[in-house]
Amino acid sequence: MTTTTGEVGSAAVAELVASVGPLDDGAMQAARERLDRLTKPPGSLGRLEALAVQLAGIRGRLVTAVERPAIVVFAGDHGVTRQGVSPYPSDVTRQMVANFVAGGAAINALARAGGADLVVVDVGVAGEPIPAPPIHDRQFTLVAARVANGTRDFTVEPAMTMAETLAAIEVGIRCVRNLAAAGCDLLGVGEMGIGNTTASSAMVAALTRRPAADVTGRGTGLDDAGVLHKAAVIDAALARHALDPDRPLDVLAAVGGLEIAALAGAILAAAGEGIPVVLDGFITAAAALVAARLAPNLPARLIASHRSAEPGHRVVLETLGLEPILDLGLRLGEGTGAALAMPLTAAAARVLGEMATFEGAGVSGPA
Amino acid sequence: MTTTTGEVGSAAVAELVASVGPLDDGAMQAARERLDRLTKPPGSLGRLEALAVQLAGIRGRLVTAVERPAIVVFAGDHGVTRQGVSPYPSDVTRQMVANFVAGGAAINALARAGGADLVVVDVGVAGEPIPAPPIHDRQFTLVAARVANGTRDFTVEPAMTMAETLAAIEVGIRCVRNLAAAGCDLLGVGEMGIGNTTASSAMVAALTRRPAADVTGRGTGLDDAGVLHKAAVIDAALARHALDPDRPLDVLAAVGGLEIAALAGAILAAAGEGIPVVLDGFITAAAALVAARLAPNLPARLIASHRSAEPGHRVVLETLGLEPILDLGLRLGEGTGAALAMPLTAAAARVLGEMATFEGAGVSGPA
Repeated sequence: MTTTTGEVGSAAVAELVASVGPLDDGAMQAARERLDRLTKPPGSLGRLEALAVQLAGIRGRLVTAVERPAIVVFAGDHGVTRQGVSPYPSDVTRQMVANFVAGGAAINALARAGGADLVVVDVGVAGEPIPAPPIHDRQFTLVAARVANGTRDFTVEPAMTMAETLAAIEVGIRCVRNLAAAGCDLLGVGEMGIGNTTASSAMVAALTRRPAADVTGRGTGLDDAGVLHKAAVIDAALARHALDPDRPLDVLAAVGGLEIAALAGAILAAAGEGIPVVLDGFITAAAALVAARLAPNLPARLIASHRSAEPGHRVVLETLGLEPILDLGLRLGEGTGAALAMPLTAAAARVLGEMATFEGAGVSGPA
Repeated sequence: MTTTTGEVGSAAVAELVASVGPLDDGAMQAARERLDRLTKPPGSLGRLEALAVQLAGIRGRLVTAVERPAIVVFAGDHGVTRQGVSPYPSDVTRQMVANFVAGGAAINALARAGGADLVVVDVGVAGEPIPAPPIHDRQFTLVAARVANGTRDFTVEPAMTMAETLAAIEVGIRCVRNLAAAGCDLLGVGEMGIGNTTASSAMVAALTRRPAADVTGRGTGLDDAGVLHKAAVIDAALARHALDPDRPLDVLAAVGGLEIAALAGAILAAAGEGIPVVLDGFITAAAALVAARLAPNLPARLIASHRSAEPGHRVVLETLGLEPILDLGLRLGEGTGAALAMPLTAAAARVLGEMATFEGAGVSGPA
């Protein structure tokens, strides 16, 4: 499976992975000390204070504002949809990307609500190229970076070649480096791809050595029989591929997806750039799990926005040691959970940046 | 205890209470139908969809945007602080109101983060009047509406007369009617008052017939011995006052506070005006409990922003049947939890207002 592209990609990925270091202890300590001098009982802002400390550790300095939040949504199709694993037809991936372009999807509304830029990347949608938006919208960008017209059906062959996998990872890396150059200082990640909860469940089952039933859910709305069928499809595919959980890129190539590979690349690139990453739901968490198997320092740089209804999501969050900020029963994807949690993350920064200290405000401390 | 002021106040409150009707079923049904036509799997936005339905029920029409969110913070002092129930001196109430005026408190940072107007009302701070802000800030208003220089020590006498209680309730009503006239369409409520978790625990113990130990916590940071002392102070006071749980205004007058009475008035007024109310933590919930005992239709019009660390908060939320949006370990008050949840509530409105339908966007539904 090693190709020229693959080798170049491997070296680039290896270099990136090596650049993901531990959090900056000094910056975190400075954040803790500042928080305890602000006009509030120590610790009384709970998770917000932990976020402010984490942001400092990731960026290596006190973070007192989020200036340019951005959400990147990778879209791709899945050959495994031929096995009847989703109530929605595969065409919906392309239709929903067109809906993103038109500004009418949930992620458009929620990115606007949170003041975040939105970048949608076609890394593997099937069918004709998707026309760019007719009018340039500062807040919205469509990136055409298709590696393939969807993946192959992983029940009969690997979803992607290693060359495709690495090319998709590099799409994610490139997108985030462009965003970083434009000043992005908080990155939300999302996805669109009919069939991608099936791919994610397969990846998580393989990487955590669990039966598919433990990590397979309703996706966009399967009934009980549908979930059983989906888990059986995954177990059969995993038996066929005989994957090694210690080779995460092989797992990604065999049963993952183009948008999931791009997500893994984007997450690693953000970590390498010192940009905090706000995960969305199950699919982005599965991509983060692959990335974390490559870069063990990664999880401390991730913020879990919410806990979705997918049983596999809980498993991945526990494996990564992440506690979600929100628990709102979301199960949409697209980056919607990230979009909702990013303003809370930005609020944590503002607490550090805008609150007075006890001394400065002349407020008495505890007796 | 019935005075002329009291009688006038009672009639005004009775009229307001009678104006709090049930939610509008037709508007809620219209919201549900619209949500199911939007380009997302039905129900996939979880709690956000429930919020969109609730907003429709409260306002009596589809709510597609929040145009002018406002947070009102009532401040008052508590005579019971003489009993050593808080680690902070009573002066901190006044110092913190000055900090609000200077823009350096947590609620200033978080109201700005959420784009909400902030109104701080001195309904019962002790000491000299608090100077108004030197420069007019569109987003910040200080209202001087002091009914008394703090409450009396409820361990030896009622905290307030009924006349004071009703006057403070009317301050809350007036503030919200002014905000409503200015276009406020989502109201967050908060408070500042050293000693007010003690007053709230006493009120909740009396109204729910529980021992103080069940509903008494650390407040701004008591240790275990401090919590035991606080609960003992409350139990002794409740034994002295022999309150009737079916007379909520008597409970409020005997062991409540001026800012808590104003909160109850503000919450009732918002309900009467059809403005959704986002509660903050334990103290605002205790005020809502008093208000709900007067107006049984009230709880459906309330949004619980978060679950705080105070044990009494959980009790009140369960009693009111409210499920908090956030669980971030907050225990600051000031309206900070409300400020964090209000953008999520506004996001729910934007989903209804900005998302395309399956038909409109040409997206296929489930097979």
